[in-house]
Amino acid sequence: MKDVFLRNSWYMFAWSNEIDDAPLGRTVAGNSVVCFRGRDGIAALEDACPHRFLPLSLGTVVDGVLECAYHGLRFGEEGRCVFNPLGDPPERAAVRVYPVEERHGIIWVWPGDPALADPERIADFSFLTDPGRATVTGYAYVKADYQLAIDNLSDLTHVQFVHRDYQASEAYPRLQHDTWQDGDIVYRSITFPDGPPTPFFLNVMPADRRIDIRMETRWTLPSNIKLTASVTEPGQPDAYIMGNDSAHLVTPERDGSCHYFYAHSRDYGVGDAAMDEKIREWQRIGFGEQDKPVLEAQQKRIGDRDLMKMRPVILPTDAGSVRARRILAQHIAREQARETEAVED
Amino acid sequence: MKDVFLRNSWYMFAWSNEIDDAPLGRTVAGNSVVCFRGRDGIAALEDACPHRFLPLSLGTVVDGVLECAYHGLRFGEEGRCVFNPLGDPPERAAVRVYPVEERHGIIWVWPGDPALADPERIADFSFLTDPGRATVTGYAYVKADYQLAIDNLSDLTHVQFVHRDYQASEAYPRLQHDTWQDGDIVYRSITFPDGPPTPFFLNVMPADRRIDIRMETRWTLPSNIKLTASVTEPGQPDAYIMGNDSAHLVTPERDGSCHYFYAHSRDYGVGDAAMDEKIREWQRIGFGEQDKPVLEAQQKRIGDRDLMKMRPVILPTDAGSVRARRILAQHIAREQARETEAVED
Amino acid sequence: MKDVFLRNSWYMFAWSNEIDDAPLGRTVAGNSVVCFRGRDGIAALEDACPHRFLPLSLGTVVDGVLECAYHGLRFGEEGRCVFNPLGDPPERAAVRVYPVEERHGIIWVWPGDPALADPERIADFSFLTDPGRATVTGYAYVKADYQLAIDNLSDLTHVQFVHRDYQASEAYPRLQHDTWQDGDIVYRSITFPDGPPTPFFLNVMPADRRIDIRMETRWTLPSNIKLTASVTEPGQPDAYIMGNDSAHLVTPERDGSCHYFYAHSRDYGVGDAAMDEKIREWQRIGFGEQDKPVLEAQQKRIGDRDLMKMRPVILPTDAGSVRARRILAQHIAREQARETEAVED
Repeated sequence: MKDVFLRNSWYMFAWSNEIDDAPLGRTVAGNSVVCFRGRDGIAALEDACPHRFLPLSLGTVVDGVLECAYHGLRFGEEGRCVFNPLGDPPERAAVRVYPVEERHGIIWVWPGDPALADPERIADFSFLTDPGRATVTGYAYVKADYQLAIDNLSDLTHVQFVHRDYQASEAYPRLQHDTWQDGDIVYRSITFPDGPPTPFFLNVMPADRRIDIRMETRWTLPSNIKLTASVTEPGQPDAYIMGNDSAHLVTPERDGSCHYFYAHSRDYGVGDAAMDEKIREWQRIGFGEQDKPVLEAQQKRIGDRDLMKMRPVILPTDAGSVRARRILAQHIAREQARETEAVED
Repeated sequence: MKDVFLRNSWYMFAWSNEIDDAPLGRTVAGNSVVCFRGRDGIAALEDACPHRFLPLSLGTVVDGVLECAYHGLRFGEEGRCVFNPLGDPPERAAVRVYPVEERHGIIWVWPGDPALADPERIADFSFLTDPGRATVTGYAYVKADYQLAIDNLSDLTHVQFVHRDYQASEAYPRLQHDTWQDGDIVYRSITFPDGPPTPFFLNVMPADRRIDIRMETRWTLPSNIKLTASVTEPGQPDAYIMGNDSAHLVTPERDGSCHYFYAHSRDYGVGDAAMDEKIREWQRIGFGEQDKPVLEAQQKRIGDRDLMKMRPVILPTDAGSVRARRILAQHIAREQARETEAVED
Repeated sequence: MKDVFLRNSWYMFAWSNEIDDAPLGRTVAGNSVVCFRGRDGIAALEDACPHRFLPLSLGTVVDGVLECAYHGLRFGEEGRCVFNPLGDPPERAAVRVYPVEERHGIIWVWPGDPALADPERIADFSFLTDPGRATVTGYAYVKADYQLAIDNLSDLTHVQFVHRDYQASEAYPRLQHDTWQDGDIVYRSITFPDGPPTPFFLNVMPADRRIDIRMETRWTLPSNIKLTASVTEPGQPDAYIMGNDSAHLVTPERDGSCHYFYAHSRDYGVGDAAMDEKIREWQRIGFGEQDKPVLEAQQKRIGDRDLMKMRPVILPTDAGSVRARRILAQHIAREQARETEAVED
């Protein structure tokens, strides 16, 4: 099976600030999509002119419609050709329209049946645009299956090894962890109890302080994670010192590659540009130079095999990723079954 | 179907000035060919030594024969091994010979049945070596199907968008165009009537002049175009001001890639080396940085599908490319049918 | 047939000095292997953690065991997980162990049945660590089938052409050669009789001297060559002047690519670091810039075809490579037959 993704789902396409006057093309779950700012807001179309199949994302936005870079045909947000510089727009000239939503700094597209595209199903990432917080966003293109990235994020015990220089803790051997579920939402927490600050926190607190560090993840379909990190007094979960929320939204491009969108949002040092820069640098190293090579090396080793069919050793700390994979697989299977039925009817 | 090209046809292999003392290897319609200057003129052989299959194009020309770079076997223009440094030339050592012609600065090879290789069927590009003209040649390797390049050249309305900075005209919305055919030759013209000089002509005429610009293309099998551009007084097609002829010869390498040979030949500024340089720069940008990325982006989007089976929207301005594709497809189908027959006999 | 290699055979994995504190990963005959220095010497394991399949070669050696870079599981030289930082080592967590031997500066691995891994079958390359000799080693990654490299080394007449600048001789047309066999070992010699020193020897003898240069190769399964070059008085094979031994060990990585390990060992200028440097430079050019491009160009031309089925012209000088290919093919065929039998039992 190739390029089998959940179709009826909202996928992150881009950060809002990635799209200004110019269109942006990206492949989402096997669909080539172009987004641009149209007359009525953000628009998402199939990224290929129906005339000679040049990606429309190479074109320009003219008066809120998208002009093909090859022969100047223009397409509106409803997908129809609205202008032909040398005559009437050809009747058949239209491209597929994708449901699209822009919310809390994220542009979401829906590659499935438009009739089912309910914006209410978009997971809550409202903290990203909370004016009381400072948020730094970024993007990494990763040549690895998106579910490997979700495994990574669902089992944060890897920070001790992969992100050793920022996040290793002496408390690691005493790590506590838990996994729970609310419908199709998978939660997981790990706590480093009563340890010194990890290097990441050393610029905001002294090295001899004792703290609990708790990281809680919320996984939602298809492959998006909200991570809440909080620092509290040892043994007093309510004695909050500081914390940050982060977003880790992973969109499959096609088999074996994905878009990894990340954001870090803190409730301290808001307005501190130098701290923004430090966070950005930490993201670039942590995701670009630490996680990305791990994910790509896994993918190379796994090749086109299905990881779960390779009978991997399962550790207790995999509870979150195992549940997330299972829920996603069930949804895909159900969707495939419905489509087979529909074809047979 | 893979690598199905018209076999019995002359394909441009190289510009004459690309081959001096050294051999040159290129793949033409799926055939690996090496050309070199032999004792009796230009020679074309299969580009693989029959001993260990090293490309002979890595070798050297010694006394008009081609020496393999690996063990020194030498091959003459009749394809036979004529020298073995350690004994008699092995009897079986021979490579395939391709009919080859050098004419008006172009080296042509014929990948089909040598008995059918009639040099009279080579299209006329004699303007390229007309001493009264100044000619500048070039080459671009393009990772796109050769027919996409022919589409491009058969519908020159794209200059308004792709080559905007050199060739966009205010007269574009009033563009006139025509398509006609003479046997297997397809002609097409477009005229920008009564407009100001396009940027390309600004260095030879004032910006406030009014002119007609006419471009006429002649497509010949398999995939070669002569383009005649002429500037005339508005509404007076015979009141010639200046013009240029250009050659656009596109040779398929294999599926999804081609050799694009281009030449610009003008009847003004002959001997003006600075103008040569300007033309060369315009070619480098126009073909290398403007057309090539368009063709390669189309190819990437189309993949290994057949463009015509993707039901493209056809515009009136596609009349030339549609005819050229149809004629070529008919010739290939006829050739395939003949070969199937021959096999069945 | 894909990736069909002799399984029950010792393959060179690395030079001893390539592995110090860090592990090293390489693919050998289709097997991803990691070697590291364990508590009891060199160890070779499957290069994939059984938890999430990250290559273990990205990890670190801690107290003589190999720690995975992702979640810190540690594996001993017996392949079992010996440490889990967050609990007991999972029972199923184990990786395949490869028989491994370190001998005369070479690390050998055995991808076949461990019960058959007899170190006595390792070919003798003891000259490499002879304290009376000066040895310079190197490595080239070559995108070509390993048997093309063996063809190259089994027919040293190519030095006249490929390594012309170092080894061409006026005596070449009078070259004498011989091929003989001892069981599965193939010997071959070529002699350049009564000629001037080739450029390679010019720094150790005058240009007007007359010498015989003899090169004798010993090929052993699966694809390893010892080359003995000796310079003697013309016509007096016993009147030894000087010489060198070299090792050329070629390990298939997978179809179409190989590891080429080379070493040059001389009995003159021992301790002369400048001469070491010259040898190293000659190796870099000779193997990296001369042989490697030849082998890779052959591979590109041959593609996924079987060279012997392409009916290559066979020259008398191919006697060594033809025998080596035949012996290797027989061993592979026998092994495949045994495995088919075993499956059917």
